[in-house]
Amino acid sequence: DPLPPLKEYTLIHDPVFLAAMAKDVREKVLTEARRVLPTIERAAIVMKGGTTEDFEMYDTDTDKCEFRQELFFRYLFGLNEPDCYGVLDLQMGAALLFVPEVSPDMARWNGEAHPPEWYCARYAVQECHLVLQICSILHRKGIRKLYTMMGTNSDSGLQFKTPPDFAGIEDFDVDSGPLYQLLEECRSIKTEKEIQLMRATVRVSSQAHVYVMRHIKAGLVELHLEAMFRAWTMFFGGSRHLSYTCICAAGNNGSILHYGHAGRPNDCLLEDGEMVVLDMGAEYSGYGSDLTRSYPVNGKFTADQAAIFNAVRAAQVAVMGQMRPGVSWPELHRLAERVLLQHLLDLGVLHGGTVADLMTVHMGAVFQPHGLGHLLGMHVHDCGGYPAGTERPKEPGPCWLRLGRKLQKGMILTVEPGIYFNGPWLDLALQNPDQAKYINEAVLDRFRGFGGVRLEDDVLVTEDGIENLTVLPSTVKEIEAVMRGDFS
Amino acid sequence: DPLPPLKEYTLIHDPVFLAAMAKDVREKVLTEARRVLPTIERAAIVMKGGTTEDFEMYDTDTDKCEFRQELFFRYLFGLNEPDCYGVLDLQMGAALLFVPEVSPDMARWNGEAHPPEWYCARYAVQECHLVLQICSILHRKGIRKLYTMMGTNSDSGLQFKTPPDFAGIEDFDVDSGPLYQLLEECRSIKTEKEIQLMRATVRVSSQAHVYVMRHIKAGLVELHLEAMFRAWTMFFGGSRHLSYTCICAAGNNGSILHYGHAGRPNDCLLEDGEMVVLDMGAEYSGYGSDLTRSYPVNGKFTADQAAIFNAVRAAQVAVMGQMRPGVSWPELHRLAERVLLQHLLDLGVLHGGTVADLMTVHMGAVFQPHGLGHLLGMHVHDCGGYPAGTERPKEPGPCWLRLGRKLQKGMILTVEPGIYFNGPWLDLALQNPDQAKYINEAVLDRFRGFGGVRLEDDVLVTEDGIENLTVLPSTVKEIEAVMRGDFS
Ligand SMILES: [Mn+2]
Ligand SMILES: [Mn+2]
Repeated sequence: DPLPPLKEYTLIHDPVFLAAMAKDVREKVLTEARRVLPTIERAAIVMKGGTTEDFEMYDTDTDKCEFRQELFFRYLFGLNEPDCYGVLDLQMGAALLFVPEVSPDMARWNGEAHPPEWYCARYAVQECHLVLQICSILHRKGIRKLYTMMGTNSDSGLQFKTPPDFAGIEDFDVDSGPLYQLLEECRSIKTEKEIQLMRATVRVSSQAHVYVMRHIKAGLVELHLEAMFRAWTMFFGGSRHLSYTCICAAGNNGSILHYGHAGRPNDCLLEDGEMVVLDMGAEYSGYGSDLTRSYPVNGKFTADQAAIFNAVRAAQVAVMGQMRPGVSWPELHRLAERVLLQHLLDLGVLHGGTVADLMTVHMGAVFQPHGLGHLLGMHVHDCGGYPAGTERPKEPGPCWLRLGRKLQKGMILTVEPGIYFNGPWLDLALQNPDQAKYINEAVLDRFRGFGGVRLEDDVLVTEDGIENLTVLPSTVKEIEAVMRGDFS
Repeated sequence: DPLPPLKEYTLIHDPVFLAAMAKDVREKVLTEARRVLPTIERAAIVMKGGTTEDFEMYDTDTDKCEFRQELFFRYLFGLNEPDCYGVLDLQMGAALLFVPEVSPDMARWNGEAHPPEWYCARYAVQECHLVLQICSILHRKGIRKLYTMMGTNSDSGLQFKTPPDFAGIEDFDVDSGPLYQLLEECRSIKTEKEIQLMRATVRVSSQAHVYVMRHIKAGLVELHLEAMFRAWTMFFGGSRHLSYTCICAAGNNGSILHYGHAGRPNDCLLEDGEMVVLDMGAEYSGYGSDLTRSYPVNGKFTADQAAIFNAVRAAQVAVMGQMRPGVSWPELHRLAERVLLQHLLDLGVLHGGTVADLMTVHMGAVFQPHGLGHLLGMHVHDCGGYPAGTERPKEPGPCWLRLGRKLQKGMILTVEPGIYFNGPWLDLALQNPDQAKYINEAVLDRFRGFGGVRLEDDVLVTEDGIENLTVLPSTVKEIEAVMRGDFS
């Protein structure tokens, strides 16, 4: 394979580019903050990053994994080290970093502290001090009001985890009301440099998918596919983290949406004739990717496999053809369902009604029991999907969307329709007379154990449509060609 | 390269073997518990495993990394899933697992719950119930007294993190006194099956080191070496986790003992003529490995590089020749220091005194500022190094040992002498007149920027000596041959 060396991806790791990207972000946040926050004079945004403690593995002296920065902190300051603070002075526009003191004993283990000038140059910030100085520096600057983070993540329902808690914070006028929503909104629309970076990250993850596609074969274990993906993205792209746990689901496992977790650790054998659903993406410099391809282990689609694949691909093409600023994402979810249902009617899995009849009984949610796609950015399920005032759709199907908004230029999101044959889930539908009457059990039985098909691309919303950042084969013909080795 | 497929390592992942291993452990713990605990009648050990919450990444709905079980829980029950409890009935000898309930909605994402019979068969336990039943089941069994974990890890100083906290626990007679030390002591001596497993894990990590040794070259980045190591151990060994963050330190970075963390993320270029210190080990089925080799990027040792390497190797050989049950580990640390210091005298870096003079001023701690080695097992710095009554040595050098005991048959530990030229650390010695007078600065200056050399093997203490589990080239000649490609 003609694999590019790490230096082909210098952008992803170039400190000058990354510092400029965070600086642009701070400019944008500053503009927005000055527009919407109640007080700017003698006010600052104060953020605390992730901590060493949070990555400790139980009572041991090693970590669960390499440190990963809290994403809002990394968004503003670009720094991936634990136990830091960052300040953005809203009046002066200056960015300040506060880093932990390194004792001589810690220096022996972890290296000497970088001097303040190193941090200022590397992260394009104006000042760098020790964390223990934060209170006195803020006072010296005349800062009176602090905006801090507090809020609920709309995907997880979890509260923001790292509010600043330095000694003396009680002497300031602390407002934790507006910042979370302000930064969520900023993150939902990417800057030019964020787009450049994500174009590169999606490209590396795409190439890793192609590598797996070329090397899959019966007799391997699902974990071999995860291993190949991780090897490629780390060796050739320099990624130390995945955006999420690899879903490497063979056969019937493909119907388990988040297969691959510790309780289902990608440990099944790949068998000839089976489909795989491979949902894998790597993180680069804090930004994610999220791509899925589904194909037969042996490289040759059967008629049924091609039929399901083509249904999902048709839904994806239909949706991408409609995407542009102003279009409602829940409406496109419904469009995808209509295309999928028409194909399931044509295939005979469904019968006895029109697509409109099937939509009325929410049949889309039986075969595609997840949302059509979600915002993508620093987090794989990026924030900003439900800003204040946006209501979550109620009906089965669209209710699972992590993005309830109209599309806007500069959003990056996934388009990931799918069809799954999940036994217990289908059995629920068969017990519901309103749905069961449209299901042809004789045909459905042919697909029991099939697993599923999902196709997931990462796309940027442009002025008048989309740019697809994904560089992957997307049709039966293209995939079969790549798997034969005809295509590069 | 003639790389063995995953199936060569079936032992590591064989559920039948792993269940038998945990069953043996429970037998051993049961015997020990019945010997030392105050009450056995109507008493049980109750353990809580790691939680989903502890692996959440801030407020997002993905994890920091794939779940890793709390090690004492995994030791007794073998299970790597979050949010579980385990009970060992001390009177009846029965093992019970308690697993979380899986709602239909969770099943859609993560798969249906395995039935209780699946857990009983897979983990060789007598019963499996839901976590919410633990209180009623314990009462039904007539259990009155619960032994739970509380204690301090002697390496990290951290408290045990997952004491059981189910509703109703207050109705039992809870004793958190003796269990931590009892289990620490059990873990410090490996069972036959643990030894079998660790022999395999050290072998896979050894082979991955050889792979890196064969593919290193100037122009790569340190992270490429980490990537190769991870790729090998995951693809060929099926390891999803490292035992610890890879230390891939080129040139002067080799003098930073725990280089590779987020603040020093293995991001420097490998240059011709430099040494690397590569300390890398993978985890398999909960058990670790910990291996270091140091060699020149270009595969050919200079005279100075060979001299430092040979000094470290001589110390390792001397120590391994003395290891047997009953020998004090701090004494062997001092032996290693004496060998290293003799070589530094011969090389002219030190002068003007005898080895005994140098030992009096703790010169060993200047060039080898860490302990000679540590227990290895489920954790890379395994527990049990300082049981009650064992005092930590006071003098610089031995004071850093994580193991203060005499060796015993069945211990597995690392033997990892090293010599480092750490600028700030050497400067402290040069400011200390008692030490400075023995240092020949003119010769020392030749080694500024050299980095370091560490050689780390994993060995088992046997009846009358050791079995070295490591399968790696260990001399200048052997390493040069492997790097030339002559040797397999
Ligand atoms: Mn997705
Ligand atoms: Mn070690």
